Amino acid sequence: MASVPSISYSITIRVDVDLRVAGGSAVSRLTRAVEESGGVVTALDVTASEQEHLRIDVTCAATDTEHAGLLTEALAAVEGVTIGKVSDRTFLVHLGGKIEINPKVPIRNRDDLSMIYTPGVARVSLALVENPDDARRLTIKRNTVAVVTDGSAVLGLGNLGAIPALPVMEGKAALFKRFAGIDAFPICLDTQDVDEIVRTVELIAPVFAGINLEDISAPRCFEIERRLRASLDIPVFHDDQHGTAIVVLAALINALKVVGKDLPEVRIVLSGAGAAGMAILDVLLAAGARHVIASDKDGVIHRARPGLSPELVPLAERTNADGRTGVLRDVLPGADVFIGVSAPNILTGDDIATMAAGAVVFALANPVPEVDPVAAAEHATVVASGRSDLPNQINNVLAFPGVFRGLLDAASHTITIEMLLAAARALAHVVTPDELNAAYIVPSVFHPDVASTVAAAVSKAVRDSGSSVASFPDGAQPDGTFPEPTQV
Amino acid sequence: MASVPSISYSITIRVDVDLRVAGGSAVSRLTRAVEESGGVVTALDVTASEQEHLRIDVTCAATDTEHAGLLTEALAAVEGVTIGKVSDRTFLVHLGGKIEINPKVPIRNRDDLSMIYTPGVARVSLALVENPDDARRLTIKRNTVAVVTDGSAVLGLGNLGAIPALPVMEGKAALFKRFAGIDAFPICLDTQDVDEIVRTVELIAPVFAGINLEDISAPRCFEIERRLRASLDIPVFHDDQHGTAIVVLAALINALKVVGKDLPEVRIVLSGAGAAGMAILDVLLAAGARHVIASDKDGVIHRARPGLSPELVPLAERTNADGRTGVLRDVLPGADVFIGVSAPNILTGDDIATMAAGAVVFALANPVPEVDPVAAAEHATVVASGRSDLPNQINNVLAFPGVFRGLLDAASHTITIEMLLAAARALAHVVTPDELNAAYIVPSVFHPDVASTVAAAVSKAVRDSGSSVASFPDGAQPDGTFPEPTQV
Repeated sequence: MASVPSISYSITIRVDVDLRVAGGSAVSRLTRAVEESGGVVTALDVTASEQEHLRIDVTCAATDTEHAGLLTEALAAVEGVTIGKVSDRTFLVHLGGKIEINPKVPIRNRDDLSMIYTPGVARVSLALVENPDDARRLTIKRNTVAVVTDGSAVLGLGNLGAIPALPVMEGKAALFKRFAGIDAFPICLDTQDVDEIVRTVELIAPVFAGINLEDISAPRCFEIERRLRASLDIPVFHDDQHGTAIVVLAALINALKVVGKDLPEVRIVLSGAGAAGMAILDVLLAAGARHVIASDKDGVIHRARPGLSPELVPLAERTNADGRTGVLRDVLPGADVFIGVSAPNILTGDDIATMAAGAVVFALANPVPEVDPVAAAEHATVVASGRSDLPNQINNVLAFPGVFRGLLDAASHTITIEMLLAAARALAHVVTPDELNAAYIVPSVFHPDVASTVAAAVSKAVRDSGSSVASFPDGAQPDGTFPEPTQV
Repeated sequence: MASVPSISYSITIRVDVDLRVAGGSAVSRLTRAVEESGGVVTALDVTASEQEHLRIDVTCAATDTEHAGLLTEALAAVEGVTIGKVSDRTFLVHLGGKIEINPKVPIRNRDDLSMIYTPGVARVSLALVENPDDARRLTIKRNTVAVVTDGSAVLGLGNLGAIPALPVMEGKAALFKRFAGIDAFPICLDTQDVDEIVRTVELIAPVFAGINLEDISAPRCFEIERRLRASLDIPVFHDDQHGTAIVVLAALINALKVVGKDLPEVRIVLSGAGAAGMAILDVLLAAGARHVIASDKDGVIHRARPGLSPELVPLAERTNADGRTGVLRDVLPGADVFIGVSAPNILTGDDIATMAAGAVVFALANPVPEVDPVAAAEHATVVASGRSDLPNQINNVLAFPGVFRGLLDAASHTITIEMLLAAARALAHVVTPDELNAAYIVPSVFHPDVASTVAAAVSKAVRDSGSSVASFPDGAQPDGTFPEPTQV
C-alpha cells in the first residue's frame, strides 16, 4: 500500500561489526547503506562492545517486504559486517495473537464459583429454557459478534485459506472492541463450500447477536449472505460490501457538498462489479443517485452485453439507462464522479482530465489505486483512496464498529438498506460544515464521535423499522432485578 | 445440590412496610419470618424511611429456587408488608454474560492500526501461507480452546438446548482463564445431529489448539469424540468423561493410601455406565485395577446379560471376570470401593455397611448422591461426593484447566490415556503425605499448585509420547525474532 517507508514495515537488524575489517567509520557506513537503499534508520543501538567487535541493532523503516530484504542485503554488503537476527515490529506485535478472553466476574472463593458455575448457574440455564430471549440479558449474546471468513479473499491477497486469514480476523475483533466495545470472535472456516459455510454459521449462531462476514470472495459472498439473512434472526453484514458502501456514500455526500452538486443529478462511473461494487451501487441508488454507469474488466456493463453473467443482470437493469457501450475510458469524459473498486493503474491523470469540472475521484483499489491519487488531484477537485498516507482515506473502520454497536444496542434481528443509509448519513455529518473541505470529506478513524454517532443513527433506524427484538418482554429490568417474585 | 442455605441462592427481597399496620416490631418479624421458613438473613438494609412507611431490602440465603419462593411468601404473609422487586445475586452476576474479549495490543494511532490491521497484517498472513504451523506463534491459536456443546445434557438438568447451555459454557470459559490462563470460547451448537456436530467442529477447528466437549449426552458423545480425534490434529477432550475420570482416579489413589490397600488388589463396584462411568473404567484399568464390576439401571453388567447394548459389550468384556449377575446390592458386599456416577438415593448406609472393612465410597451423582454421604461415613472410611458443603469434593475444576494448560504448552496434537493417567497421578501428589487423611484426599480447587502441577505432568507425557507439534520447525524464536534475514 505504502510507497514511502512506513513504521508498519519497521525491522530491526542485528549486525556484528568486525572493527579490524570495517574500520572506525563502520557505524556511519551502516546508516549510509540503509539510506542509499531508500530506507530510514529510526534507531541504532550498540548492544555489545569489545575492542575489535560491535554488536549493533539497526532499526529501520522499509516500504515493503521486498525492500526490507534489500536493506538487509545492503547492510550485509558493508565490509566487516555480519548479519544476525532480523526482527520485525509487526511480527512482534502479533506474537501470541492479538485478542484474549477474560472473565468479567471475580472467581475468588467457593461462593463465587457456586454462582458463576455449578450449582448456581443451573438456575440461569433453567430461566433461559423458560425465556430464551433472556439470553440477551443473562449471557454474552447481547454484545457478541462472530467475524466469519473462509479465507477465500484475504485483504487484496486472494485465496489464502483459513489459517492465514486468522491474523486479519483477530485484528478486526480487536478493532470491534477498541472502537465500539463489542466482543468479537474470529471464526475461520476450513471449507469454501457455500452450503457448508451457511450451515456452520447457522449452527454456531446461538451465541452471537450479529454475524460479520469478512474476506469471502464474490459471487459466493452474495449467496452466503442472502441465505444467512433468510435463516437467522440476527443481522448478517458482509463488511467488504456494506462497510465499504457506507463509507463511500458518506464520503460522496460530503464531496458533493464541496463541489456544489446534487446526488440525483451527477453522472457516476463505477469501476468494478464485484462484492464492493455491487454494494456501493445499492446504497447509491437507494440514496437517490440516478445516473450510474458501471464497468468491469470486460468493459462497460449494459443489458445487451454478450455473455453477461447472471449476477450482473440486475446491475445492468438498474444502470446505464442510455445503453452505452465500450470501455471505461469511453464513458469517463464528462462524468462528475469516478468510484473505483477494481484494479491498479487502469487510469491516468489525463483520463481524469476528461471528467466534468469539479470532478470527484475515489480510487479505492488496494494496495495500488486505479489512478495515482497525486496525478488525479491535478485534475479532480476531490480525491479519495484507501491509502493511509494521503488525505481522505476510505477506511471501513469508520463504519463497521458503529453499525454493529447500533444493531446490538437495538437488539436488531436484521439489517436493511435504510440502516446502511442512516449509517452513511450519520458518518457524513460527523464532519461539520466548518471542517468540510476537499481534503477532509471523512473524519479520522480516531475521531471520538464516529462510532457513537453512527451507532445512534443505526439504532434509531432499527427502532423505526420495527426490527428490534423485544429483549425484555417479561418486564425484567436491565439492572437484573425482577418485578415479580415468581421469576426468582 | 445443597440442602443447607447457600450464598448461591442468595436473594434480595425489597419489602414495603406500612408501620400503621405492621407496628413497631415489623423489622424483627421480617427476620423471624425468614428464619422460621429455614432461611438465613444475611443483610437487612432500610433504603427509604417515612413516618409511616419503611422500604427494606432483605437479603437472605435459601436452599434452592423453591425455598427462595417460600421465603418470599413468608415475608408477604407478615402483616403490613408488601413485596416489591426480588433480585438475586446469581442472576446479577450473570448480567451481560461472564466473559469478554479484549485486544492484547494497543490501538492508539495510525501506526498501531497499520501494524495490527492493514497493511502490516498482510505480511503476517503471507508468512502463515508459507508456514501454517506458525499459527501457534503469530495468532491466538496457541492458547485458545473451544468449549463445545449441543446442550443435550446440561449439568444434571437434561436436554435443554444450545441457548440454556451458554451460561454453563461461559462459566467454563471463565474457569479456564482463572485457573490456567487459557482463552476459551463457548460454541453452543443449534443441532443435536452427530454428523452435523462433528462437521461443524472440524470446520471451526483452525482457530483452536484444543476442543473441550461439554455436556453432550451419551452415547452420542462417544462417537463425536472418536470421530473428532480421528480427523483433527488437536486434542479433543470430553470433560464430563475424562475430567471426571482424572479426578476420580486421583482421589482413589489417595483414598487407597489412607486405607492401606493397593489398586490391583481392591474389588471395585462401579454404578453407572454412561459417559462418566465408561471413562472412569478406562483410567481405572489403565492404572492397574483388575477387579471391577459395573452395574447400571438394568443391574449388574455381564457378558451374558440379555439385551446388552453395543456400547456395553466392550465394558462387559473388561469387567466382572467371574460373571456375577443380579443388582447393585448383590455385588456390594465385601467390595473395597464403590464409585457411583448414576442416580440419587439408590443405596443406604446399611448397604455401605456390607462392604469390606476400610471401605471407600465415592457417591458422585449430582445434585443428590447415590447414598447420603453422612450416612455412608458411618460405615466407610473414606467418603467423597460432588457436594461443595462436605469434604472430598470431586470437582472437574481440579483437572481440566491443568490438563489443557499442559496440552497447549506442549503443542500436543492428541490426548492419550497416558496423559490422563499422568494428570491423575500429579493431582493426587498435590496432597502431601503430611496432609493426607480421610477428609482430604483431593486438594482444594483454589490450591495454588493444582493447575501447574497437572500441566507439567501432562506436558511431560506429551513430550514422552512424541505427540508434540513441532511448532517452531524453522528455528524461529519464541521472542518473535528470526534467525535468518530471508524470513522477514
